[in-house]
Amino acid sequence: MQTKKIELLETYLSLYINHFTVLENMDKEDSRYVVLDVRNAPAQIKKDQIKGATAIPAKDLANHLDELDKNKIYVVYDWTGGTTLGKEALLILLSADFEAYELAGALEGWKGMNLPIETL
Amino acid sequence: MQTKKIELLETYLSLYINHFTVLENMDKEDSRYVVLDVRNAPAQIKKDQIKGATAIPAKDLANHLDELDKNKIYVVYDWTGGTTLGKEALLILLSADFEAYELAGALEGWKGMNLPIETL
Amino acid sequence: MQTKKIELLETYLSLYINHFTVLENMDKEDSRYVVLDVRNAPAQIKKDQIKGATAIPAKDLANHLDELDKNKIYVVYDWTGGTTLGKEALLILLSADFEAYELAGALEGWKGMNLPIETL
Repeated sequence: MQTKKIELLETYLSLYINHFTVLENMDKEDSRYVVLDVRNAPAQIKKDQIKGATAIPAKDLANHLDELDKNKIYVVYDWTGGTTLGKEALLILLSADFEAYELAGALEGWKGMNLPIETL
Repeated sequence: MQTKKIELLETYLSLYINHFTVLENMDKEDSRYVVLDVRNAPAQIKKDQIKGATAIPAKDLANHLDELDKNKIYVVYDWTGGTTLGKEALLILLSADFEAYELAGALEGWKGMNLPIETL
Repeated sequence: MQTKKIELLETYLSLYINHFTVLENMDKEDSRYVVLDVRNAPAQIKKDQIKGATAIPAKDLANHLDELDKNKIYVVYDWTGGTTLGKEALLILLSADFEAYELAGALEGWKGMNLPIETL
């Protein structure tokens, strides 16, 4: 069981990227990181988003893959870490052979640490 | 690692059902979907629940399996998506060969989207 | 798929310990349980913690393993169940052959049930 636990933790954690990496690449001209807001809600419900994020709702993502760039690293986020939309988006991206991660802590954690957001 | 990630995401996401499916079957006479509130808290702590849900606390679920119907599809939920009670209930149901899913986003997400609830 | 789901749930749930076990060992002189607060935030952000917890931020944990005891059972917790710090700490502990679990529901759940905390 110990081995199974370690394997699960390793794979599970490899799905995530932490806010430090996102933050330190945020304002770089040549950054490979692209933050995708995959919440399905309309702008008036979302109200704000991570600064510089591109909104592609998870439900539409499969139809927008041709607008994405295989040289970029995609970081998806949803409202909280307890929802499944980020993982749905991640599955679509990884299955299409993009490099992609889910933002650890999601939007809730990002805002909880007072990191840069922008109103919609 | 990519294959392991995709496998984990596929299995993980297959545990969940989204609110659309629950919502569109909510008021149907012959719906196969039964929503189970598996929170262990008493009614005065829970205060409200998803409209039409049946309360079977996760801690009691194993003793109530004979009241369940193999022709139904059970949707379990807990307070938030970050707790483990929904998964405990799901394990009991799947192990007993019931068709069952956890509600993505849990009660928190359901209420956040202003979907139908009822007071207890 | 049913077998894969059950296996994932079993392994996933085996990473967790519930608050009852922590609570009933909390004030025992000879308790084997040690609660570790692995949040990376400074004390002024954390404000309070689970009563009797030892603070070892997840980012420092790998450098403090020689202060830990193989006869103890470590229970790690982070802010919420939707963050990944608890699992990062757990991976470090299990890989170093310690017995360790993540607290189900995390600090958010503990406080939601009005369980004992202490200010920092």
